[in-house]
Amino acid sequence: MNITHIEHLGIAVKSLETAIPDYENVLGMNCYNIEEVADQKVRTAFFKVGQTKIELLEPTCPESTIAKFIENKGEGVHHITFAVPDTNEALHELEEKEVRLIDKTARHGAEHLMIGFAHPKATGGVLTEFCCPE
Amino acid sequence: MNITHIEHLGIAVKSLETAIPDYENVLGMNCYNIEEVADQKVRTAFFKVGQTKIELLEPTCPESTIAKFIENKGEGVHHITFAVPDTNEALHELEEKEVRLIDKTARHGAEHLMIGFAHPKATGGVLTEFCCPE
Repeated sequence: MNITHIEHLGIAVKSLETAIPDYENVLGMNCYNIEEVADQKVRTAFFKVGQTKIELLEPTCPESTIAKFIENKGEGVHHITFAVPDTNEALHELEEKEVRLIDKTARHGAEHLMIGFAHPKATGGVLTEFCCPE
Repeated sequence: MNITHIEHLGIAVKSLETAIPDYENVLGMNCYNIEEVADQKVRTAFFKVGQTKIELLEPTCPESTIAKFIENKGEGVHHITFAVPDTNEALHELEEKEVRLIDKTARHGAEHLMIGFAHPKATGGVLTEFCCPE
């Protein structure tokens, strides 16, 4: 596994309208993109800090996994996404190590990335995503 | 506020002995330091990925805030730490904006850093720390 950096942090929030001004006014960051990812039932807002993006995730319906996360744990960091040279290679390497995976092959995510998730049980309770450019 | 990058992510884990091998074997990272921070009642293990460190936090007693976090929310990301040129200046700027703070002045943290925390209510439920070198 050749992780180069943390590509982004996914943060579950109840409302982008409330959270975006917090990040802009409190932390002085600039929201450069808002995007809806229909198949994940979320609206996302992106900020950049050094090598890493912050992706705020607002559920668009009560069945969204983000809505369930907030119901169980409250607002907070939902996943960490590591940049790798090839998402499929990373998933394949983990499968060979018998690491529990959510995705066995990469799929399209926000921001023109190919993404894949490992199971949170594999990395100390943290939902871990891997990504590379499309 | 002039944030340059994410200095580290603090991740609450029940046991370093279980979590360190996950990060080393699954993600291919190298634990380069284990440190006890007595006043925060935690044992910490550090990894580096790009600009950012991952700091695993194991509670050393049930009264540790990390033990309470795990009890309430389960294992997961406990705080995000942003690198700033001067922690006291960052805290002072937030105080002037009437942002809720945990620390009004910087104090010594692990890894030779001067640290200070804002209140999680100020940034969409995420506990936010600022740091600069001592």
